[in-house]
Amino acid sequence: MQILRERILTDGRILAGNILKVDSFMNHQIDPTLMKSIGEEFARRFASVKASRILTAETSGIAPALSTAMALEIPVVFARKHQPKTMVGNPFREKTESPTHGNQVELIVSPEYLKSTDRVLILDDFLSSARTIVALVKLIQQSGATLVGIGAVIEKTFAGGRASLQSLDVPIETLAQIERFDGDQIILSELN
Amino acid sequence: MQILRERILTDGRILAGNILKVDSFMNHQIDPTLMKSIGEEFARRFASVKASRILTAETSGIAPALSTAMALEIPVVFARKHQPKTMVGNPFREKTESPTHGNQVELIVSPEYLKSTDRVLILDDFLSSARTIVALVKLIQQSGATLVGIGAVIEKTFAGGRASLQSLDVPIETLAQIERFDGDQIILSELN
Repeated sequence: MQILRERILTDGRILAGNILKVDSFMNHQIDPTLMKSIGEEFARRFASVKASRILTAETSGIAPALSTAMALEIPVVFARKHQPKTMVGNPFREKTESPTHGNQVELIVSPEYLKSTDRVLILDDFLSSARTIVALVKLIQQSGATLVGIGAVIEKTFAGGRASLQSLDVPIETLAQIERFDGDQIILSELN
Repeated sequence: MQILRERILTDGRILAGNILKVDSFMNHQIDPTLMKSIGEEFARRFASVKASRILTAETSGIAPALSTAMALEIPVVFARKHQPKTMVGNPFREKTESPTHGNQVELIVSPEYLKSTDRVLILDDFLSSARTIVALVKLIQQSGATLVGIGAVIEKTFAGGRASLQSLDVPIETLAQIERFDGDQIILSELN
């Protein structure tokens, strides 16, 4: 996705630990015009999977997931990291590690909004180690719903997360792929 | 806003402690079509304040704030509750209490995305006690930016939060007002 690639090269910053900072348009400040285009692109790529719901994780997954949900006109559910007072009963829970904070977190979804009859599209901001996405997959498996696709705005191909998702046998779409960091240079893959 | 009022009456649930559960369309699952309409309505009501940025707080403020940002075509910044690895330097910080979890939280914004030249519109999911919104106002004051308006999707008029914002002398817009709970009945105000 060309406008995303250009934005990453212009505004992305490499921090210690191979962390890519895209806080100026996705993870702290959101560029709504870019985010709308991202949603439309995901909707186009996943049109054929006939998803009934989108599942993401708070916080940074919400913007691309909502934008895609607007384009596909299907509801989006964001897994919570803490059980709010409004979530009663026995929610689905999966432990994972927060890539932006480094601590253990739990992802929690109410069975009210993830049904065994659902066809679920997972969307997130990054596909890196894929730990968050794997936790979302396990939540879907708990619910008995069918996973139909996985999308992430930015993929760090060097982090190897995609390999751990291949056995799921669903389409995996990412809109920009980072091959490596070369000093303070971001090297994008030429794939798409 | 009639479609929001109808949705609250149909899907809203009253929980202990005067908590209104609207997890089916705003706080856990998001209805993207309704959320798009909410953003367009805020954009219409705040068109004249000439905002340059929207400020909200993670997590549940993000959807209405992003939707409004899409309609106004201005960036949205979401205050973080924990400082991520990507946020370096000395961010603006304000303590408040989480209405959905009941614990003390800190709202954190990077000075990179809140400038003294900004005209800032605050948006959130609820106007209840207004504690979160007051913390966002203080973040704006720290930055030297100008507050130009405050919007919330649902107002609990009985919680009195609006009174604590009146002295700020900016337009305050809410799209549905809950006057009281009568047993398991939600009583909306007739105002708008």
